[in-house]
Amino acid sequence: MDHAEWVRRDLRALAESHGFWCTPPNEIEERLARVRTAMRLNEIEALWVVEKMDYYFLSGTTQDGFLFVPEEGAPLLVVKRELERARTESPLGSIVGFRSPRELPALIQSHWGRLPKSVGVELDLLPVRDYLKYQELFPGMRFVDSSAMLRGVRRIKSPFEIGLMKMSGEIGRKVYEEAGKLLKEGMTEIEFGGLLEAVAKKYGHEGLLRVRSLNYEAYSWHVLSGLTGGIVSQSDSPMGGLGLSPAFPVGASLKAMRAHEPILVDFGICYHGYQTDRTRMFSIGKMEQKFIDAYEACREIHNAVLDAIRPGRDCEELFTMTLPLAEKLGYKDSYLGPPGLQTRFIGHGIGLELNEFPFLAQGQSYPLEAGMTLAVEPKIVFPGEGAVGIEDTVVVTENGFEMLTPFDQVIVEV
Amino acid sequence: MDHAEWVRRDLRALAESHGFWCTPPNEIEERLARVRTAMRLNEIEALWVVEKMDYYFLSGTTQDGFLFVPEEGAPLLVVKRELERARTESPLGSIVGFRSPRELPALIQSHWGRLPKSVGVELDLLPVRDYLKYQELFPGMRFVDSSAMLRGVRRIKSPFEIGLMKMSGEIGRKVYEEAGKLLKEGMTEIEFGGLLEAVAKKYGHEGLLRVRSLNYEAYSWHVLSGLTGGIVSQSDSPMGGLGLSPAFPVGASLKAMRAHEPILVDFGICYHGYQTDRTRMFSIGKMEQKFIDAYEACREIHNAVLDAIRPGRDCEELFTMTLPLAEKLGYKDSYLGPPGLQTRFIGHGIGLELNEFPFLAQGQSYPLEAGMTLAVEPKIVFPGEGAVGIEDTVVVTENGFEMLTPFDQVIVEV
Repeated sequence: MDHAEWVRRDLRALAESHGFWCTPPNEIEERLARVRTAMRLNEIEALWVVEKMDYYFLSGTTQDGFLFVPEEGAPLLVVKRELERARTESPLGSIVGFRSPRELPALIQSHWGRLPKSVGVELDLLPVRDYLKYQELFPGMRFVDSSAMLRGVRRIKSPFEIGLMKMSGEIGRKVYEEAGKLLKEGMTEIEFGGLLEAVAKKYGHEGLLRVRSLNYEAYSWHVLSGLTGGIVSQSDSPMGGLGLSPAFPVGASLKAMRAHEPILVDFGICYHGYQTDRTRMFSIGKMEQKFIDAYEACREIHNAVLDAIRPGRDCEELFTMTLPLAEKLGYKDSYLGPPGLQTRFIGHGIGLELNEFPFLAQGQSYPLEAGMTLAVEPKIVFPGEGAVGIEDTVVVTENGFEMLTPFDQVIVEV
Repeated sequence: MDHAEWVRRDLRALAESHGFWCTPPNEIEERLARVRTAMRLNEIEALWVVEKMDYYFLSGTTQDGFLFVPEEGAPLLVVKRELERARTESPLGSIVGFRSPRELPALIQSHWGRLPKSVGVELDLLPVRDYLKYQELFPGMRFVDSSAMLRGVRRIKSPFEIGLMKMSGEIGRKVYEEAGKLLKEGMTEIEFGGLLEAVAKKYGHEGLLRVRSLNYEAYSWHVLSGLTGGIVSQSDSPMGGLGLSPAFPVGASLKAMRAHEPILVDFGICYHGYQTDRTRMFSIGKMEQKFIDAYEACREIHNAVLDAIRPGRDCEELFTMTLPLAEKLGYKDSYLGPPGLQTRFIGHGIGLELNEFPFLAQGQSYPLEAGMTLAVEPKIVFPGEGAVGIEDTVVVTENGFEMLTPFDQVIVEV
């Protein structure tokens, strides 16, 4: 059978009968309208969208390619390999194939009637080699950085996006419910992490987490027990764990989990690209009292931040308000990391990427807005001993917040 | 306890007792010597290594930072967050911390006595925004592209690296041995993929696969059954599968696996950053004869390529030699993809990244060399029906090759 014919006839129905939600046309139209408002404010004549999550957001597909968005007129999606599949996934009207970047100027010219004088592209990620190639292909065109603008538009989630995040949070709830049954004394952290990953995948978790960065990598199996919880590593987080090697020195390790240790499970879920983050504590038998007390402090801080969430609240202030509270509770030097390596954030925006706006962090003074989604994660770290913490993902509503990662705030003791 | 003190005293022993192999000093010295030979040939005065796998290769650590390698004199590793941990992992003598990129010129100046006039940096991945920042921090310095040179050095693996790849292949062997026991009729592709991932992690698989690219993502759970094997997607491979959503439209899906379907399992393993790739076919009951015949054709092509592997053989010719063979066997239009979407490669170099040199592919005319490691993967695709294939990873030896992914070439029937 002809492959293109099969894709056109059968693929969309096959995908939808196996759990695919394609982005509806009106959703893409609304996102494009918001992007175009931002383009006018930033005096950007056209966008050349290169980063996968940015063009998924604006086109509904991640088939390999680029998206051209003029300030007025129809966008053009150019696809490198599987054109027909992109056409089944994206509601955009103009989707064409290409073989070589040399064809791009002619494709834009014939679609839009002319080439823009300047174009916005995500310079926070675009490799220099590609940039130099574009300068050669489009002589005289000015390239400006569109990444802050696109991240700005993406910070407010639509009801459709929040629906996908709720499904992501629901997969996570099932993982945490089964976790208590899977945890056994003597099992290694990574074996436990792998079993949790298997449960999550069974329910539709996509396995990869995404961060907007050249080198930073995310992963779900952040299982730390006892002293591995006290280890800081490459990630900008309170503790990274031991990991499996110098090539992957974060997350779960081959250390066996023991009775009475604090076992921290920070397990992210990805569903249709939308991520939620959740941390809970586990123990085999009763956790040592020192860690129970520290966990209760995290819980108090966590709930104080959640209670303060509403549109208009300053994001930096939501971080700084926790510092005297942590000090009052007796954790000044172990709050958010060991002395000298304490992080300066207690929350981060989350959606298609794990480092979205807003950041509840030092230096991030701007207001919360309804529709923002963020993870709040107070943690306390004792070097050489262990770590505790709690984390939930919420969406900011008109009056407060809605929980996207429902699960009891108790320590799960097995 | 003081965190830095704990790391200096205890971390290395803890890591080694939990499976860590730190890169030995002489290994790093030999790699640096090879890089410096290449630098002299390419007239590069100094390197500024920014990509994580490149600086892991040259320093032994992936703690967040950069590596400065002058043509003569000691390299300098500058670390952003966990300086003390980098010092336990890397045998380099000069490792310092930094807080802001503004400190970098002074750090290099004080380490090397001066700043280089030109510096090689990986422009295939360095984001434009970082490049512009460096141009501002180092006025007048010329930045040249070092990525081809570094990938060139990395193409030949040392005995230490080959040892890690053998351990990676050994983890994979255990996964494939257990796979037949886990596969059940009615189980979804992704549930099976998750279970295989859990087995692999238990034995030390790092979970993430790495590709050198802005947008391309790799994953282990490439499980395709029946008609999902006929679906092409974003990856430059014969078939991508259905996947879980438009945001992750590759690999295992929520489709249930049925009796007599061809079930293709292409499962990569990462151990200490070193990857091996292996594909085998499974079926529940006997696979339909059409697919058994096509699998036997893949096996014949696979073994013909393996038999031809030795130093001096031309990489493009190892690809083109398979085309008349596939035609003779009756698979001209379904070999390496459906008509119009047939890929033009039958093998790829593999190591810290999945797209290393050499490529057994059209346009890649250069000789194989001893110490190269590559995956050979003939596949045959029937749109709307299914796909079959076989894949192994080998190292080129003085007289032929050595298998890194031992496992019988039979179809595993359960």
